[in-house]
Amino acid sequence: MEFSSKIIEQAVEAFAQLPGVGKKTALRYVLHVIKQDKSEIELLAKLLLQLKTDLKYCQKCHNISEQNICEICLNPLRDETTICVVQDYRDVMAIENTGLYKGHYHVLGGIISPLDGITPSSLNIETLVNKVSTGNIVEVILALNATMEGETTSFYIFRKLAPYKTKLSAIARGIAVGDELEYADEVTLGRSITNRIPFDSLMKK
Amino acid sequence: MEFSSKIIEQAVEAFAQLPGVGKKTALRYVLHVIKQDKSEIELLAKLLLQLKTDLKYCQKCHNISEQNICEICLNPLRDETTICVVQDYRDVMAIENTGLYKGHYHVLGGIISPLDGITPSSLNIETLVNKVSTGNIVEVILALNATMEGETTSFYIFRKLAPYKTKLSAIARGIAVGDELEYADEVTLGRSITNRIPFDSLMKK
Repeated sequence: MEFSSKIIEQAVEAFAQLPGVGKKTALRYVLHVIKQDKSEIELLAKLLLQLKTDLKYCQKCHNISEQNICEICLNPLRDETTICVVQDYRDVMAIENTGLYKGHYHVLGGIISPLDGITPSSLNIETLVNKVSTGNIVEVILALNATMEGETTSFYIFRKLAPYKTKLSAIARGIAVGDELEYADEVTLGRSITNRIPFDSLMKK
Repeated sequence: MEFSSKIIEQAVEAFAQLPGVGKKTALRYVLHVIKQDKSEIELLAKLLLQLKTDLKYCQKCHNISEQNICEICLNPLRDETTICVVQDYRDVMAIENTGLYKGHYHVLGGIISPLDGITPSSLNIETLVNKVSTGNIVEVILALNATMEGETTSFYIFRKLAPYKTKLSAIARGIAVGDELEYADEVTLGRSITNRIPFDSLMKK
């Protein structure tokens, strides 16, 4: 693409850094910005800088936080002997929205994906092992995506934590609520049958 | 969506203003920004502000420009008696990239779309009529999208310019180069047959 303006070209390149944004989409964003009110753009520019300066990672669980220790870790009503291991902030949000989990989290900051250059050492796995090695953790729940990379990461963590006495569990895989059996893939349906649960446990929910 | 941080919430809302960006995509962008280098974010923030302060619309053709009159309008080698009417800057770019057009442009800044609140009076149609009314324009080429709104806008401009002696043409609609006939829709194929061209004119290209 050839641009008549250097500023447009640079702005397109900057927007194209965002995940899933190509040059055509970036140009669409740029043209929108040119049309937007100056105050809206100043706000976006200010917020971008604030994201970098005001946010940090919680020193305990690595979740994104405005303080050194996040609100979840600081909350005395939450059970700190249970740790739910997730990939990133969005997963914490998703689980928090269910309102059904009252333990702590541990945010890995990604999942193992050698093709993208993400190795175990670039994730927050060491600090998880340290937490478990204290012997104060009763249960670690692995809540990673049901993808190849997610399962690989789960297995890697499972091996790292196996030497300790801590109970290790994984969130249930199965037919999503509202789904029809005939459209489910075989692996999901197979796991759903293998990991069947007593019917009366469903009645309580 | 509930966010644990006010800054994240505001940044998601600001990003969600961009065209085609929902809250989930906006959150993806925000999480990416948090991971990016500070210098990259500062550059994006600076460019956003520059887009608003350094760019203006060309006073002659309404194209986006760094000066009051854009480079195309200033270029003495271009034919100012031919005007190509387009929707926005992206179309100017697309036509410029073909390298086959040497006239001037007239950028409408949108197309008529009553549902989106875009009426003829919110577009740069008045100034086009003024240009044509001087009698100095030999040909006006309508190069709007082949959509319902594009055709409506073309027809509206056609009616506005009909009283003048200026030649009015529209870019050819037809089977795209590389397309197979059997997959073309009937309207396109029909127009392609109706507006057939002498074969020897193809040989010259």
